[in-house]
Amino acid sequence: MSDVNLKKLAQELGLSISTVSRALRDSHEIGAATKQRVRELADRLGFEPNPHASSLRKSKSRTIAVILPEIQHTFFSQVINGVEEVAQEKGYHVLIYLTHEDARKEQDIVHLLRNGRVDGMMISVAASSTEFQHFETAQKAGIPMVFFDRTYDEIDVPNIITDNTDIAFEATTHLINNHCKRVAFLSMPQQLSIIQKRKDGYLKALEAHEMTDTENVVECGFDVEENRKKIRALLQSENPPDGIFATAEKLAVITYELCRELNINIPDDLKIISFSNLAVTALFDPPLTTIVQPAFEMGKEAAAILFKIIDQKVLLPNEKKISIPSHIVERRSTGIF
Amino acid sequence: MSDVNLKKLAQELGLSISTVSRALRDSHEIGAATKQRVRELADRLGFEPNPHASSLRKSKSRTIAVILPEIQHTFFSQVINGVEEVAQEKGYHVLIYLTHEDARKEQDIVHLLRNGRVDGMMISVAASSTEFQHFETAQKAGIPMVFFDRTYDEIDVPNIITDNTDIAFEATTHLINNHCKRVAFLSMPQQLSIIQKRKDGYLKALEAHEMTDTENVVECGFDVEENRKKIRALLQSENPPDGIFATAEKLAVITYELCRELNINIPDDLKIISFSNLAVTALFDPPLTTIVQPAFEMGKEAAAILFKIIDQKVLLPNEKKISIPSHIVERRSTGIF
Repeated sequence: MSDVNLKKLAQELGLSISTVSRALRDSHEIGAATKQRVRELADRLGFEPNPHASSLRKSKSRTIAVILPEIQHTFFSQVINGVEEVAQEKGYHVLIYLTHEDARKEQDIVHLLRNGRVDGMMISVAASSTEFQHFETAQKAGIPMVFFDRTYDEIDVPNIITDNTDIAFEATTHLINNHCKRVAFLSMPQQLSIIQKRKDGYLKALEAHEMTDTENVVECGFDVEENRKKIRALLQSENPPDGIFATAEKLAVITYELCRELNINIPDDLKIISFSNLAVTALFDPPLTTIVQPAFEMGKEAAAILFKIIDQKVLLPNEKKISIPSHIVERRSTGIF
Repeated sequence: MSDVNLKKLAQELGLSISTVSRALRDSHEIGAATKQRVRELADRLGFEPNPHASSLRKSKSRTIAVILPEIQHTFFSQVINGVEEVAQEKGYHVLIYLTHEDARKEQDIVHLLRNGRVDGMMISVAASSTEFQHFETAQKAGIPMVFFDRTYDEIDVPNIITDNTDIAFEATTHLINNHCKRVAFLSMPQQLSIIQKRKDGYLKALEAHEMTDTENVVECGFDVEENRKKIRALLQSENPPDGIFATAEKLAVITYELCRELNINIPDDLKIISFSNLAVTALFDPPLTTIVQPAFEMGKEAAAILFKIIDQKVLLPNEKKISIPSHIVERRSTGIF
């Protein structure tokens, strides 16, 4: 079957079988443009690229891959520790691949790993990904997959997530309960499903407190200086917020720096809560109230589910989507102590 | 040649060629004890384990591996970003493997990667490694290798390091110049070459200021609670230090926590300087004076040298050992501002 398909692929593309084969193996002898043409057709036809892949998979690489946007943040390094704990028990190696939030890189890595190099993969989707063909193709090729944290919900792949909407509701309510009248939401790119969910929780809390007229969403991104400009404008606006909900630690850090520069007192003038798994936020001046995600547990759970799939066990319906709660650590930045 | 060797290996071990071959491929069908016997003999004879390895290497995996103790610390995640920048330009993928400071795991990973799975590897040695046969075997097998930060100096492999002795001398002198009379040195395990070098710098600075009688080295490790006990005992001792030089960020963090608990004022009662690449130390209360290592540059340099070896270019003598200077960022914890 595979041979016929390889031949067919070659005929359709007007290339030799050997060229097609090498393109699918990601050989450096083949140019990027040709590789792309070959891949695109292979994907469209749902073609298993490497004829050895299925046998390789059966023979087992004893390796799983974790595909991550980055590791600068403690969240992801804690996830990896959870994954490694389970993998260690199973006698598996863990490979870590970084996408640096680059959709193209994510596609390349998933393509590379389809060829039986690993027994399964765990993925947290890159922020710039808007096309998800590569996941669908990998799924068709039968590679065990699990999404964690940042998911792609359109295919039937297990998800390990945290309760982003609920905890965002709780965080916003915490600020409101501590007398904030104007809570601003520092967002990361909104195409990320987790950011959408956090925003939903924020809006629901405003609604529950009849404060929808105070809605203030500032969309930040990956450029530190751009973020700094936006947050500075927010803090210096005519009607500045008295509460900030930061969806990423780095946005809280910039806010702290700007408050120092602009002589804004935390928590008297401005209260801050932020998603962060960084323990040293307790040493900040003032200590930062954080939303702590169950990163280690998410890593363990994701790996456990992945191994169930690899071992061809049947997943229970409640194992298809696992949500582990986050929790809030109250500190002085929200004026509690 | 390889076939004869495989046969010979099998004969010596009283095993079938197929068993030996599968053991060397790390197949799950072969037990751990047998694998170990096979590997040991293969290593002793300097045997190239996989007959396809050299051809695989020629055909190029377009992948390099980074073998690290951990990624919880910003230092290593910044190194990886440097590596990725260079690898990206070359069109290479980067695989990250974590040893979690476990010597056995490091050996397993190096063994695994010898088989042509990657074109080269960059290693920062695990703290518990006291045996280095696996590096020697990998070198004999002709795998391009580079050490960075934590090195193994007994084999002829390029090293990318920072000036640990000089910067430790400077850091200790900084405390002494800021009127510290009793500087304690919070060490990590001293079998690590970088810790030895930092200690050398500390001792040299005491000597230069005729303060060798105040030498006070507290050896910490990887158990947080053990470290806390040791540092608490130090701070509560009869003649406590008025200056602390922490060789790892986590030791400075524990010191901060204990000072808060014991009502020790930083910097009035105790001045602290620490190795740390964590930018948010600027938000600590008080802001922490840090020794910042050129992590990103070390990653870039290590990758650049590795690619030179992969591309079979001749290394200049000064490319065999590259030292990039660290620098001190003075903040309030050493009483400067």
